[in-house]
Amino acid sequence: MILVLGSFTAQPGRIAEALALSQAHVRRSRTEPGCLAHAVHVDSENADRLVFVEQWSDGAALKAHFKVPESRAFVASIAALSTQAPAMAIYEATPIG
Amino acid sequence: MILVLGSFTAQPGRIAEALALSQAHVRRSRTEPGCLAHAVHVDSENADRLVFVEQWSDGAALKAHFKVPESRAFVASIAALSTQAPAMAIYEATPIG
Repeated sequence: MILVLGSFTAQPGRIAEALALSQAHVRRSRTEPGCLAHAVHVDSENADRLVFVEQWSDGAALKAHFKVPESRAFVASIAALSTQAPAMAIYEATPIG
Repeated sequence: MILVLGSFTAQPGRIAEALALSQAHVRRSRTEPGCLAHAVHVDSENADRLVFVEQWSDGAALKAHFKVPESRAFVASIAALSTQAPAMAIYEATPIG
């Protein structure tokens, strides 16, 4: 399984817009092949920072997700609202408990 | 690296208390050996649901974390504030991107 952790910090006053875009992205992503989970959360220590947790069946599903035009548009929109480039880490994850 | 995803939903009216306990747990956990990251977030689709993302250097560090008396007391406190048993998934995670 592929696990993705992503995050970005919205510019001052832009968090509502960023969250609405993020929630739409989450809802759309959940309908894609191989998407096991996709959600966005608010950092409890920074109300302007959003954290994504995604789970995909395999690397091919994630690769296809990145190629979806709406995914690319979302990344561009978020980058424009962020204080710096959004962060993303991708893991091959094996359940052990 | 060990990656832990945990979550629970607070009973109605108990989220402020649950979040304060969770943030104290996060701050304490970050000081433990082998803790690479530990944070708590608010589910953007359910303001009563908290989501933890933890990263530990190895299984031994996580095992030691579970044995810390304050960790055990935290779990008991949270269980008493939750609508149902808190969820936890543990993964062996290898960065691939």
